[in-house]
Amino acid sequence: MNLTLNVRNNGQGLSEITAEVAAAVQGCGVRDGLATLYIRHTSASLIIQENADPSVVQDLQHWLNRLVPENDDLYTHTAEGPDDMPAHIKSALTATSLSIPLVNGELALGTWQGVFLWEHRHHRGERQVLINVLGE
Amino acid sequence: MNLTLNVRNNGQGLSEITAEVAAAVQGCGVRDGLATLYIRHTSASLIIQENADPSVVQDLQHWLNRLVPENDDLYTHTAEGPDDMPAHIKSALTATSLSIPLVNGELALGTWQGVFLWEHRHHRGERQVLINVLGE
Amino acid sequence: MNLTLNVRNNGQGLSEITAEVAAAVQGCGVRDGLATLYIRHTSASLIIQENADPSVVQDLQHWLNRLVPENDDLYTHTAEGPDDMPAHIKSALTATSLSIPLVNGELALGTWQGVFLWEHRHHRGERQVLINVLGE
Repeated sequence: MNLTLNVRNNGQGLSEITAEVAAAVQGCGVRDGLATLYIRHTSASLIIQENADPSVVQDLQHWLNRLVPENDDLYTHTAEGPDDMPAHIKSALTATSLSIPLVNGELALGTWQGVFLWEHRHHRGERQVLINVLGE
Repeated sequence: MNLTLNVRNNGQGLSEITAEVAAAVQGCGVRDGLATLYIRHTSASLIIQENADPSVVQDLQHWLNRLVPENDDLYTHTAEGPDDMPAHIKSALTATSLSIPLVNGELALGTWQGVFLWEHRHHRGERQVLINVLGE
Repeated sequence: MNLTLNVRNNGQGLSEITAEVAAAVQGCGVRDGLATLYIRHTSASLIIQENADPSVVQDLQHWLNRLVPENDDLYTHTAEGPDDMPAHIKSALTATSLSIPLVNGELALGTWQGVFLWEHRHHRGERQVLINVLGE
């Protein structure tokens, strides 16, 4: 079964979507199986990270911005703005799809794990995430 | 169901394989499900990226080559040539497996998304990609 | 079907778990399908890499340590020790989930591929990996 999750964001940064994904998955009625998330974009990505201390995702963002800066002379793909090519590179280094087992009808996340959409561009907007659920 | 795709490449770079993957998947007759791609190598990888403007994949290649240069004094694994250890590192930073939902019998790629095999070595050759299809 | 693999490690480094994963998967009796590994942590990750020459995984570790050093002034998340924030970043750059097709009841790994748990922290400990198996 495939579901669609539309995620609004406030521009560059990690937005936690654990609750939305959990709610969508529970509606499928699968007790034992696999949930796969897929983001239909190439300048935003998916990541599972610590959701307890917000400094983790802030540091992740700052570190990745330093590794992949804007206005690098290497880029030739600049027509869509200075944040576009860095966004493609950041997406390449993180995940377009992610799979999480379903145990007793719940996402089997670890204690400190949350699911995040990582927007790599500055503009606010909406991103589409598909959720595939397989199992019984 | 598992299918095998043999992909010839012209050496280092990203080769789009969207059409080949789509054709293989359609032959399975699954309308609602999940396609998982798996590359059976450790010096080439899989990536979903923008396939509209070829400057995106060119910039990706140049950026990754700068991040992971050949002839770095750090490498001790040098017996298979100067492009070998960089290829392993590049594979580690990108994807060995990728999953894409199947909706109405089609890969549910976003408008700007293409599937690419990313060859990290210089020699021309053939790489093997497995495609697993689950669903109904 | 979901299985749990508890993996002990000796601190930072790559530990091969191919044999443990293969044994767990074979017990499921699935001949044609997909095995998905999922690590329930945010400072350790999963990777498929060359398992023939141990210098590959050593170079991978040294390269990643140089890219993501400890005691970087950028980090604000420092309460859990100097190796904690680098471990989150390293996890973000590698994989939390990995899928491998099952062909004739076996993991369809390439000739040179092994499955590794990559511990990014220094302390010895135990990590939990879930294995989901789908198919027939």
